[in-house]
Amino acid sequence: MDTALEPHHDGSPLYVSTQHPQLGETVRVRLRVPQALGELHGVRVRSNPDREPVFSVAERAGSTSGWDWWQAEITVANRVHGYRWLLRLADGSDIWVNARGVFTTETLDSEDFRLVAGSDAPAWAASSVLYQIFPDRFAASDAAASRPAPEWAVAAQWTDEVRLDPPARSTQLYGGDLDGIVGKLDHLERLGVTMIYLTPVFPARSNHRYDATTFDVVDPLLGGDEALIRLVEAVHARGMKIIGDLTTNHSGDAHEWFRAAHRNPDAAEADFYYWRDAEHDGYESWLGVPSLPKFNWNSRELRQRFIEGENSVVARWLKPPYSLDGWRIDVANMTGRLGDDDLNAEVRQTIRRTMIDVNPDTILLAESTNDASSDFQGDAWHGAMTYANFTRPLWGWLSEPLADAGGGLGMAMQTIPWYDGWQFYAAHRQFSAGFPWSIRLGTMNALDTHDTPRFRTRALPDTLPVAVGMSVTLPGIPVVWAGDEFGLTGIDGEHSRTPIPWHAADAASGTIDLYSELIALRRKHSALNGGGMRWVHVSDDALAYVREDGDESLLIVAARADVGIDLPAEVIPAPDAVEQLFGGLVLSTEGDSIRISGTGPDFSVWQTAGA
Amino acid sequence: MDTALEPHHDGSPLYVSTQHPQLGETVRVRLRVPQALGELHGVRVRSNPDREPVFSVAERAGSTSGWDWWQAEITVANRVHGYRWLLRLADGSDIWVNARGVFTTETLDSEDFRLVAGSDAPAWAASSVLYQIFPDRFAASDAAASRPAPEWAVAAQWTDEVRLDPPARSTQLYGGDLDGIVGKLDHLERLGVTMIYLTPVFPARSNHRYDATTFDVVDPLLGGDEALIRLVEAVHARGMKIIGDLTTNHSGDAHEWFRAAHRNPDAAEADFYYWRDAEHDGYESWLGVPSLPKFNWNSRELRQRFIEGENSVVARWLKPPYSLDGWRIDVANMTGRLGDDDLNAEVRQTIRRTMIDVNPDTILLAESTNDASSDFQGDAWHGAMTYANFTRPLWGWLSEPLADAGGGLGMAMQTIPWYDGWQFYAAHRQFSAGFPWSIRLGTMNALDTHDTPRFRTRALPDTLPVAVGMSVTLPGIPVVWAGDEFGLTGIDGEHSRTPIPWHAADAASGTIDLYSELIALRRKHSALNGGGMRWVHVSDDALAYVREDGDESLLIVAARADVGIDLPAEVIPAPDAVEQLFGGLVLSTEGDSIRISGTGPDFSVWQTAGA
Repeated sequence: MDTALEPHHDGSPLYVSTQHPQLGETVRVRLRVPQALGELHGVRVRSNPDREPVFSVAERAGSTSGWDWWQAEITVANRVHGYRWLLRLADGSDIWVNARGVFTTETLDSEDFRLVAGSDAPAWAASSVLYQIFPDRFAASDAAASRPAPEWAVAAQWTDEVRLDPPARSTQLYGGDLDGIVGKLDHLERLGVTMIYLTPVFPARSNHRYDATTFDVVDPLLGGDEALIRLVEAVHARGMKIIGDLTTNHSGDAHEWFRAAHRNPDAAEADFYYWRDAEHDGYESWLGVPSLPKFNWNSRELRQRFIEGENSVVARWLKPPYSLDGWRIDVANMTGRLGDDDLNAEVRQTIRRTMIDVNPDTILLAESTNDASSDFQGDAWHGAMTYANFTRPLWGWLSEPLADAGGGLGMAMQTIPWYDGWQFYAAHRQFSAGFPWSIRLGTMNALDTHDTPRFRTRALPDTLPVAVGMSVTLPGIPVVWAGDEFGLTGIDGEHSRTPIPWHAADAASGTIDLYSELIALRRKHSALNGGGMRWVHVSDDALAYVREDGDESLLIVAARADVGIDLPAEVIPAPDAVEQLFGGLVLSTEGDSIRISGTGPDFSVWQTAGA
Repeated sequence: MDTALEPHHDGSPLYVSTQHPQLGETVRVRLRVPQALGELHGVRVRSNPDREPVFSVAERAGSTSGWDWWQAEITVANRVHGYRWLLRLADGSDIWVNARGVFTTETLDSEDFRLVAGSDAPAWAASSVLYQIFPDRFAASDAAASRPAPEWAVAAQWTDEVRLDPPARSTQLYGGDLDGIVGKLDHLERLGVTMIYLTPVFPARSNHRYDATTFDVVDPLLGGDEALIRLVEAVHARGMKIIGDLTTNHSGDAHEWFRAAHRNPDAAEADFYYWRDAEHDGYESWLGVPSLPKFNWNSRELRQRFIEGENSVVARWLKPPYSLDGWRIDVANMTGRLGDDDLNAEVRQTIRRTMIDVNPDTILLAESTNDASSDFQGDAWHGAMTYANFTRPLWGWLSEPLADAGGGLGMAMQTIPWYDGWQFYAAHRQFSAGFPWSIRLGTMNALDTHDTPRFRTRALPDTLPVAVGMSVTLPGIPVVWAGDEFGLTGIDGEHSRTPIPWHAADAASGTIDLYSELIALRRKHSALNGGGMRWVHVSDDALAYVREDGDESLLIVAARADVGIDLPAEVIPAPDAVEQLFGGLVLSTEGDSIRISGTGPDFSVWQTAGA
């Protein structure tokens, strides 16, 4: 497909006059149109205020090499104001441009570009690089050894194999703790990450702690409240951020609220859960797992205690002395949803209101591992932990086909299909198109997580730089799942929770350096932290795109095999003045073409002038 | 594209075990898979209960010529339960089947098939044929001549030209009335229509009456309440239905509620509208037209008077002695929406609850002329008056490209683009995919309406049978906008409100017979009234599809030019035993192929055995 010379718009500053529109504000939007498209009979922006389309006339507003720029104004009528572009060509036919691409038939409202009034992602969200830590498996302080394993646990030595057999898979306890993390912050600084995401730290009866017994204290096995304070202070001292993990869909069945309410219809917490009988004996739970009873968000008291107001759980841990910088919400997609109930929007908006009251400079990420767009429209969640737009398409393009991928990627029949470059492109654009631009920038580009197999397990040979490179250069927050930088593998979400092999850091230094170098690239270049995103080439084995702002344009090529592609010179502003920042492909200009060739797999980046 | 041998599922009884699933019910769903696809490694149904995907295993459940049938069970978890099919092919690749078609990458939730629990469309909805009447222009009774024109009106003689110059375009009054309609019911019976849709009949200050001055009486210019009673009784006596038209987005500025509230903040109706100042002087209105002030549905009192409960306007006209069979809601897409307010779901659900309390055997259609799907999920509206899935694609395929189409089709730059068959197919499937099956069956297949140019105005020569044929054979309610059957033309929504030329009925008998014959075809064949819908051919100039149920399969070919297409014999159950029901194309079977050829434009239908 020739995507090189398509009309283009996105939500970045090159194309939209403000990143923080307000209701009633008039916003300038711009479209770049390849001159190769010929004379246009007209350009319009179709808005959809109150769900009734109106068209604004766009005017030509300058040209740059090979491109004309068109500009129009939109008055923001609703909190989420959808719009798309319409071009009338000289032959009388129409082209529509929306967040999914370029089309010759009318397009869906759900794929419109969006201006979101009042979206409040913190300024640092889009330039974050996230490092995910599973506390039991990251690092143990000296104090850890002296803590006896609780009754439910199977104590393990740091170098023991991770056990996959139940119940050991969730009770095997290695004894990592929060002070252990403090001792490894040099490693994180070397990597260049800017934000730590801790999976749950509340007491529980499993190694993953998604079955909290209370939200009021940090697990003593992790060092307790004081250890969290020490960790947050140490992280902040290095200029990094750190966020926690909340289970708003369920608690553990040993949670103090559940214990009070179970078989006790008179308890103050009686309406916190969904009961199946008058005796409050049977109850709804996460996917039918009895140890994870599901919260009933119809309860006002539950809202007060958990998410609403400055005395709630949500607020408590963001305030000093704990001072977490935000939350990642577990199973956000199911939260508040059961049968006829759908309280999801109320819950998420309440959580965010509470956070704003306590500290607006916080981030709110939320798990929604499939088509996440409908809940992520800028009213609460700042970004998604989802696998549909990046993780699974990436696996499809860069992994051996797996007939036995194990659980965790949410794939049907537990397998990863084999994708060509077109399929990566189609899936990525399809599942990104529903997000407003700021949500796209806040969404997690994870190769893997604590719930999935590790990418490297079945990666095609030599494709790790390609995968990591794409995670730091496509719009979104790059994610390093702790241990990936050590080259760890894991066949499923359980197996990938390997204790970090600190003893093997030297042997892993090549991989650690790869991560460091690519993360540094991400952090150094403004175009990668909010700049526009324009596809210029898609083929079976190669993908190319441009990230750009007023200061620089980066041409990026990801290839899983040898490369020989020709692009029109107009895809970047100054093809004769490029500097190669990464990778081994060769770029040469020949007349009106840019030729990129070399041995693959490879991930190459060139910098040139801004747009 | 070869759509002939694709895996297929839809919401019809061939594929789903019940048309009325309930929450918690287990429903059997079936998929037909062409044996040409080869051995399958597995078939799954992906459901999305509480927004978390689960996969059910499908089993092979029999074969028919060239097809295998797979079957699975789904337990309905939410009111709208989305699902899609996943096929694992022998080569390890996947195919997804959803309401939009067949894909090799993961698909969006919004394009899932849907089971809707508690949807309550009346049994007769899907087999309706609708006739739209604009009362001022349809027919005048003898009494009409004796009614003096009101002050605002410009009286016109029946044969006067429709004036397009404001203000006459909305004040020119021809004097049609409800008893005039009673006198023409023979004509409607000859056509075979089953339901009349009357544009508003409440008093107003325009010929279109979308600017009501009250909802409490029928306009005396139309004969008043008694005339409506006479009309409804006459319609019912012939076994037909009749529905009215309500403006829930706005009233007229001469409405009694607005008059009471304007500049009077103390009025009981003070909060019925959106005021711009404390004096209740300035106000919001439909598209800024001051004569159409916009309702504020935050008002409880407005809800009580207008839509909620048996004393409301919504209820009043459905009860005896008026006994309307339902409502068409004007500007439903904007209703309840302004700036930060979105009360649309509350309003539509309240309207439907009221209707159910008064008479559940009523229909609720709603105007939403663009991408309508998000409001039409089975919670209230039974079908959409929309132009996105049928009307505009049809114009694109069967009309001369119009650079000056005038207003009313909601097209950008007031033009109709030129579509080939692929574009018709893509647009039709895209804008139909978001509807649950029952909504698709209730959605209006209009060639045009009182708000658009008339289709015949710029139709390609000899394509009227194709257009009408498609309107009666694609899923949805066929619509005859009064006058189309007389061959009328009109360059925009105003111009198309021509008084019906009853004097020219003889000259128009060919067109009237065409409509009658095609409507009779629709009404006679069960497969056209709720049967499955399967595409079998798409090319620039021809479209072919099969409507089918257990009793019959209809093969339908719509062609705008000469035809010569070959289809695999398996597209219909008994290719050697077909009966031609309509059209002039020739079908012959040659070995494993069905050849269809002949001179176009043409609309042909063949009947054979059921699936």
